[in-house]
Amino acid sequence: MGDNMEYYAGEYDVIVIGAGHAGCEAALACSRMGLKTLVTAINLDSIAMMACNPSIGGPAKGNLVREIDALGGEMGINTDHTMIQIRTLNTKKGPAVRAFRAQVDKKRYSERMKWVLENQENLYMKQTEVVDILTEEGKVTGVITNLGARYSCKAAIVATGVYLNGKIVIGDVSYEGGPNGLFPAKGLSESLKKLGFELRRFKTGTPARIDGKSVDFSKMMEQPGDENMKAFSFMTKEINIKQNSCYLTYTNETTHKIIRDNIHRSPLFTGGVEGVGPRYCPSIETKIVNFPDRESHQIFIEPEGINTREMYVQGMSSSLPEDVQIDMLRSIKGLENCEMMRTAYAIDYDCINPQDLKLTLESKHIEGLYFAGQINGSSGYEEAAAQGIMAGINAALKLKGKEPFILDRSEAYIGVLIDDLVTKGTNEPYRMMTSRAEYRLVLRQDNADLRLTQKGYDVGLVTEERYNAFIKKKENIENEIERLKCKSISPVDKVIEYLRKYNSADIKSGVSLYELLKRPEITYASLAEIDEEMPGLSPDEAEEVEILIKYEGYIKKQLTQIEQFKKLENRKLHDDIEYNQIKGLSSEARQKLSEIRPSNIGQASRISGVSPADISVLLVYLEQLRRR
Amino acid sequence: MGDNMEYYAGEYDVIVIGAGHAGCEAALACSRMGLKTLVTAINLDSIAMMACNPSIGGPAKGNLVREIDALGGEMGINTDHTMIQIRTLNTKKGPAVRAFRAQVDKKRYSERMKWVLENQENLYMKQTEVVDILTEEGKVTGVITNLGARYSCKAAIVATGVYLNGKIVIGDVSYEGGPNGLFPAKGLSESLKKLGFELRRFKTGTPARIDGKSVDFSKMMEQPGDENMKAFSFMTKEINIKQNSCYLTYTNETTHKIIRDNIHRSPLFTGGVEGVGPRYCPSIETKIVNFPDRESHQIFIEPEGINTREMYVQGMSSSLPEDVQIDMLRSIKGLENCEMMRTAYAIDYDCINPQDLKLTLESKHIEGLYFAGQINGSSGYEEAAAQGIMAGINAALKLKGKEPFILDRSEAYIGVLIDDLVTKGTNEPYRMMTSRAEYRLVLRQDNADLRLTQKGYDVGLVTEERYNAFIKKKENIENEIERLKCKSISPVDKVIEYLRKYNSADIKSGVSLYELLKRPEITYASLAEIDEEMPGLSPDEAEEVEILIKYEGYIKKQLTQIEQFKKLENRKLHDDIEYNQIKGLSSEARQKLSEIRPSNIGQASRISGVSPADISVLLVYLEQLRRR
Repeated sequence: MGDNMEYYAGEYDVIVIGAGHAGCEAALACSRMGLKTLVTAINLDSIAMMACNPSIGGPAKGNLVREIDALGGEMGINTDHTMIQIRTLNTKKGPAVRAFRAQVDKKRYSERMKWVLENQENLYMKQTEVVDILTEEGKVTGVITNLGARYSCKAAIVATGVYLNGKIVIGDVSYEGGPNGLFPAKGLSESLKKLGFELRRFKTGTPARIDGKSVDFSKMMEQPGDENMKAFSFMTKEINIKQNSCYLTYTNETTHKIIRDNIHRSPLFTGGVEGVGPRYCPSIETKIVNFPDRESHQIFIEPEGINTREMYVQGMSSSLPEDVQIDMLRSIKGLENCEMMRTAYAIDYDCINPQDLKLTLESKHIEGLYFAGQINGSSGYEEAAAQGIMAGINAALKLKGKEPFILDRSEAYIGVLIDDLVTKGTNEPYRMMTSRAEYRLVLRQDNADLRLTQKGYDVGLVTEERYNAFIKKKENIENEIERLKCKSISPVDKVIEYLRKYNSADIKSGVSLYELLKRPEITYASLAEIDEEMPGLSPDEAEEVEILIKYEGYIKKQLTQIEQFKKLENRKLHDDIEYNQIKGLSSEARQKLSEIRPSNIGQASRISGVSPADISVLLVYLEQLRRR
Repeated sequence: MGDNMEYYAGEYDVIVIGAGHAGCEAALACSRMGLKTLVTAINLDSIAMMACNPSIGGPAKGNLVREIDALGGEMGINTDHTMIQIRTLNTKKGPAVRAFRAQVDKKRYSERMKWVLENQENLYMKQTEVVDILTEEGKVTGVITNLGARYSCKAAIVATGVYLNGKIVIGDVSYEGGPNGLFPAKGLSESLKKLGFELRRFKTGTPARIDGKSVDFSKMMEQPGDENMKAFSFMTKEINIKQNSCYLTYTNETTHKIIRDNIHRSPLFTGGVEGVGPRYCPSIETKIVNFPDRESHQIFIEPEGINTREMYVQGMSSSLPEDVQIDMLRSIKGLENCEMMRTAYAIDYDCINPQDLKLTLESKHIEGLYFAGQINGSSGYEEAAAQGIMAGINAALKLKGKEPFILDRSEAYIGVLIDDLVTKGTNEPYRMMTSRAEYRLVLRQDNADLRLTQKGYDVGLVTEERYNAFIKKKENIENEIERLKCKSISPVDKVIEYLRKYNSADIKSGVSLYELLKRPEITYASLAEIDEEMPGLSPDEAEEVEILIKYEGYIKKQLTQIEQFKKLENRKLHDDIEYNQIKGLSSEARQKLSEIRPSNIGQASRISGVSPADISVLLVYLEQLRRR
């Protein structure tokens, strides 16, 4: 340690620590909102690295991507530019659970995201390791890097993923490391502890990568992409790619026996892994132990990219010893001769308790310090990116002296995600699922732009171009629904013929197209056969019109529920309420409410340990306050 | 350490440790020659990583690339596929020093090389760290990885670059690390020591990468690519790319003052760097110290790739503290507002003494153990690749029970490189230069295929396709030279006019085209104006014809010297000669000859400390042996 151990290296409005999926969105949001932003990464070759599966989207996760996109984020656009396969999942189910999932070329994804960051005005990128966060009087003032550079800033966003004190575990071998063979971040944990954060150990894992040449795909079920290729971003006009296939195979009794016979060597059971793993993305050994009666599990073989033979073995995340990994892979149909190129591993890492955060993702006790992504106890690229854009927007709004930007549970999956983390906390890596959303019929992926683009525009992140496209689309949909309501058809020959063709009941007298479209067997597209005045809506607009009409009843019901929900969300609770002074609250409620400091009655009601009786007490208290 | 700490993981003919420029060529050579080959890398995302400058080729280095190509290697083809600029250097000088240099897209280079390896039959690739080399009775039998996998093999090629016990140094900060933010290799050094290798510390460095957006290119001199784009590989038909420019600027007195004022903080002087650095690729601080009178040094700003704004600052390699680096960069014209994205660093690493190797690059005392690249004390991608292909070929030949493949100093730069390393040794990272080659007029880049393709074919590495192309080209050249010798022209009007046009002396009587072409002002292309029978040679063939005729005198002279040289190279010295028993040898010669065990008199004559008198003694000794 010599005389260059600290030097002043410049001033930024915001510093984003980490350039993974959370950090990239956070940095883009801040810089696009006009703030001078620095984003740091331990390795500039791992920007927006997809350290685990080579895909973006899926149920609930796809909704997050579209919400990020509607707000002016980059994940959707980047996926559209780099996808190598796209599918719409749950096409036979209702629109609430329909979701896109794209297979992505990992290297292209990372490279393009870096390119976007490099070309973003106000955004500066440096390969360095932040080892200390500086504060003065409870406010963030800067950071220090491992090379002694001191940068001053007004806000910092911690988006360190699984790098903090990362430890790789494979069988009984373990060593300090970040994901994918990169360095861990070793200094920052101490700094966070000194700032008062309680750190926890979570764990995640990734399966092996195998050599595509060594796989017998003829023994598996091919999973090609959709013929009708969809885009994630509302701004992408068309996807036109040559798609790659994935392949489905299964574990079997031999696989399970190999795992059971070696379970004593699993670090999950020997104690080699300290952290708590993701419940909804368990390792194969966890699946075998927790579901002993299952005779097989699905395994998907997915390409890692278009210019590589490496394949990802979805469903086989593991931290078993390497020899066991090889045996279990080779017991699977089609993988009998497979060659492993990268060994599956578990990674233990430090994260904070997200209950230490406000709904803006700002720390409750350090002003200007925001957290986003896996450091908050979430898992998944999409969950990380969603928190990233929200932390970025809120940091920017704060520095501009504006009101915070919070999405509630009725407005977006993003709202569900952040409310779940911040209000309820999590004891394991949190993954977004449709079942977590109370109002999922409203929080569809198809209407994410209609829900959120106006909001993104109001905070200053959505471009004029996107906003104008959104306004136009909104008008087209509204006008068309109005027109369908007004336009009545009579049982003339053509209409009778049409209805028979689709096995639909005859009509006796005039009926509106709107009413007709409510019939399950009638599609919006088919209406063209009897309606010569149909405007040329885009496929997205047409889909929206159809959903809004067909599901009108359900949606209305959900909107009524949301109204009720909003009433509680609108009953604000101030930061300085002394819960210990409120008579009638249970002692558990007093403690939890003092700790979590919910923003409103709704949030308070979702805190574990706060009962309906406590909520009644709070409502009375608020009423008394109002009268005073 | 538990029960999975060692398991048998499979058998290979050859295992190549490391997949940089040396390892890739070695692995491709072995697998293409039919051997089951495993190549390991600490990180599969860093295959053929260009950890320093984004360019391939240049004087002498370009010749190496073409020699590798002529032998059936991949570096030339890979460069052709991924280049973003190509220039021919020294076009105004003689053909001996003419050389191509390409700017390359680093990510594409790495990605395509990995793709080639992935698609190579007999070749297996694994992300793992080899920590131990196993031997039995002085022969290599296998390796062990950090995860306890034991692979058996008949030969191993160590191509670990600068990873062995790598230490990154920046100012007074230092930490264990490989190049470019990757993990170092920590186990293998101990294993090599146990096998009897004496390890040394060498050092190399790399400059900062800066943000192209922050550079004022208008203040610099643009260095565009050539209009006439050439290819490195003899197999590439055409290069047709949109080229990127480099930019030239200079250091100045302010830059030098900043460095001098902070020289006490340089680890080169504080002792933070242990290793010996490359004489011909010094850090900027070394240049300032060693050449105090120089008022400026050239600095080239080179793109790192086509999809990134990162630029390489050629000429500014440094291990000064980060703050000094920023100050010195910003003192340079055009860089006044530059933003550093990656900090320059030095890296200290373990390497062996190449005098421990035979000319085949096999260890003298461990059979089947080969070494290639920076581990041998060389520097440079091209030098590494050249050793890689030779080690690969020789490992394969040995396993096939065939004679070794050695190129001597008159046959190839590769021969000069390996002979220099193995015979003379090196006390600093060795860089290839034209001045190291005695016979550089013969070792041109244009004739590398004519020199080496037959040899590459004979060892079994050159494909039929390449061989047939070579035979055709050779015939075309020979036929054309013969034709030019035979075809005589008379001083008819057309010829007189032609000679005047090119300011060439009149001819009185008939003269062959061959003689005419020897005139400096007459080009082969221009002969078409008076010779309607010219065959349609390719540009490469035409160039060769022209060079062979114009430089015939010089080339002949050099060929005579080579004949002399060959006489000594052909006087073989057996491995088991007891030099201590030969009377008349100086004691230094006895010691050196016993250590180095040269293969022949020529090699012996190049050993430092072996005098002409000692050589005479050896010749007498050989003569006596022969008579007995």
